[in-house]
This record gives sequence, structure tokens and C-alpha cells, in this order.
Amino acid sequence: MDNLVGVIRVLTTDDPELLAAHGRIVEADYGLPTFTRCIPDQPRGIYDDESERVALPKIVALGREMVSQGATAILVSCAADPAVAELRSELKVPVIGAGSAASAVAVSLAEKVGILNLTEGAPGPVRNLLGNRYVGQDSPRGVMNTLDLMTDWGTEAALEAAHRLAGSGAGALVLACTGYATIGMAAELRRRMGILAVDPVRAAGLMAWYALGAPRRKAGES
Amino acid sequence: MDNLVGVIRVLTTDDPELLAAHGRIVEADYGLPTFTRCIPDQPRGIYDDESERVALPKIVALGREMVSQGATAILVSCAADPAVAELRSELKVPVIGAGSAASAVAVSLAEKVGILNLTEGAPGPVRNLLGNRYVGQDSPRGVMNTLDLMTDWGTEAALEAAHRLAGSGAGALVLACTGYATIGMAAELRRRMGILAVDPVRAAGLMAWYALGAPRRKAGES
Repeated sequence: MDNLVGVIRVLTTDDPELLAAHGRIVEADYGLPTFTRCIPDQPRGIYDDESERVALPKIVALGREMVSQGATAILVSCAADPAVAELRSELKVPVIGAGSAASAVAVSLAEKVGILNLTEGAPGPVRNLLGNRYVGQDSPRGVMNTLDLMTDWGTEAALEAAHRLAGSGAGALVLACTGYATIGMAAELRRRMGILAVDPVRAAGLMAWYALGAPRRKAGES
Repeated sequence: MDNLVGVIRVLTTDDPELLAAHGRIVEADYGLPTFTRCIPDQPRGIYDDESERVALPKIVALGREMVSQGATAILVSCAADPAVAELRSELKVPVIGAGSAASAVAVSLAEKVGILNLTEGAPGPVRNLLGNRYVGQDSPRGVMNTLDLMTDWGTEAALEAAHRLAGSGAGALVLACTGYATIGMAAELRRRMGILAVDPVRAAGLMAWYALGAPRRKAGES
């Protein structure tokens, strides 16, 4: 069976470019075909406990539907890993959450890891998986949502927060919002500060690629 | 600067095939060039606290030397991650340990993770990074070292141990010895039991590939 990654966005949008943004990163970096769906009726996405609670059954339903449509892996593109555990208990295909994937990459690359949040408070799975490698978290001052992040001042505020985290001794940063993927923050942090920042969408794509046996497939083709 | 992964083997050998075995897996799966060195005077490798203690300064010296010879990342090919923390504090290039890399991949793919050891007792970094996703560990009965593992009975004993771990609810297994890479145990477990097993050498290669920006480099080439 050919690989096909089903990407679930937790932000309701009818903009095809915005919808496909994360799937395109996975396709470009790992050569994995993707298709994307978003949950209904949440134009502001997941931003607190209540918005996460109402999103959970929608994500489970979408994941189920996408597997019936041919997905051989499901990627939940949100750093809070919403419904990832539920989908794993139900589906037979690999299910990857962007938050746990990013933390996993970070702990395999550094002794001390900081979390760069969008706003205050790191998503549970991100914080939990860091264990005793966690050294601190921070967020860009004044930023309230991903739209703010896409402005020049929002990006500068995020760079300042990353600077503060680097001062705490962090050898790697988890970017704990998939909005950081959209603006290419990991590459920017590496270029401007020389710090290793883990992009949650790219980390999730990496794990999907591994779970689908794509490295061996690639080797078999060469 | 071109990527070049320095692979450190913690088993002293003058057999070029055995020496290069792990580097070849990384080259085949990720297209990363590698070169390999082994520590001196430990033909039995690392198998207890004392053999790990005497190996540490040798690994640090090798890592330092390999960076001076052009390594852009260091991969310590041992599930105990010996000297990984020390090398990270000293070197400017990414340093990856096979044990923490394997655990990191496993926690990003499953809620419950089991550890398949070579003998009793999981390496510290492997166990620590699993946190509360850990559900148990087991080892092949009668196996004392990696040579035993390469026999038919050793492989069968490892499959039986994996069966017992799967019974504990594990959704993924960490193969907590790089000897499992040499015999292709992860592929065998997937084929015969349908269980996801994480190969420590392939997991370490995956993280090196990510840290070196190889996904983006690949995309840039296409």
C-alpha cells in the first residue's frame, strides 16, 4: 500500500493555501504524499481547555474518516496533541502529534531543553515528555495568537523570548505551536542565534516518515 | 560544509565489516556520509558499570578527534548513551546517543512503550526518557551478549520476549541494544508480529539527519 499521510488541522479554514501549509512542509521535506482536512466550526482553532474539549470528538471523527479514505498515517498538526491518544486506541495506523514529536526530537539532541510557547503555558504533552531535561519556557511578549506571530513585531518578540531561553542554558528549543512552522521560525533561530529549534510540523513529519518505513523504502529504491 | 557523521563504536574490533556495520545503516537509510572509529582495548564492549566507566574518557577523546577530522555530527552507537552529555558540553556539533534517540522515537509513536533489552536492566537514558509511557521491559532468555543474539535460538528468544512485552499493552518497543540493529530485529518484529519496534541505530541516524538539516537540504535539491 502506498504511503499517504492524513494531516488534521485544528483550525477551521476555507483558504486552501492556509489549509495545505503544513502538509506541504511534510511533502517537501520527506517526499511523503499528504492530504489535509480541518475540523469544522472552530475558526479560532484550539486556544484553551474548552476549545480543546469540543475539538476532541471532531478530530477523532476526522481521523477515522481519513483512514477510510486511504490514510496510512495520521498527523495531528497541533502542539497540544489533541485526540492523539484516543486515535491511537482506535486506529491501526501510526498516529503522530506535533507536540510530542517536537519534544522527542529535542530530548534526543540536547541535555537541556527550553519551550518557546505561543502564549503562556506549554501544552501538556510537550512539557511531560521533556522530563528532567526541561529548563524553562517563555513566550513572545504581546503575542495573543498566530496572526500576531506573522507580523514583524511578533517575530521579533519571539526571537527575544528565544534569547531569554538560551540564557537559561537550553541547548535546544521546542517550538510549542505549529504557527512557528508557518513562519519558518526554526530556520530563523538557527540563522540568527545559532540555536537548534525544533519545528513541530517537521518533527511530526519526521516521525511519520520513520513509522512508515520510508527510510528503508528510499534505500530500497536507490 | 558538507555533512559527515562520525560514528563511535564502543566495541574494539579490527574487523572492517563489523566496525562499519552501523555507519552503513545510516548511509543507506539517510544518505548521510559517515566514518567510524572504535574505542581501544575493549573487545567485549560496554557490558557493566565498570566497563562503561573506563570507556567514557576514550569516547570523549574519540569524539573530539573526529570533529577535528571533519565530523559535523557525532553518533555514539550504544544504547547506554555513554559520554553523550560530556561530548555535548564540549563540542559545537550535534551529538546523538542511540539509546535516547530510540526512546524519543518510541514516545512520539505510542502511548505505551516497552523495552527489549539484551540482558537484564534497561540503560538509564532509555528508561528515563520514557517517563510514564513505560510499561515494562524484558530480555531474551539465555542470551548473554550480542553474539548469542546472532544465533537462531537467540533471535527466537528475543521474539518470545517481544511477545511477552506486547502482552503488557506496549504499542511500541525500544530495542535497547545496538546489536538488534545488526540482526535487523525491528523489521523482523514488524513482519512477524506487526509490532512497531524502534531500531536504536536507525533512530540515531534519523535524529542526526534532522539536526543536520538534511530534510531541507534534500528539498532544496529537488
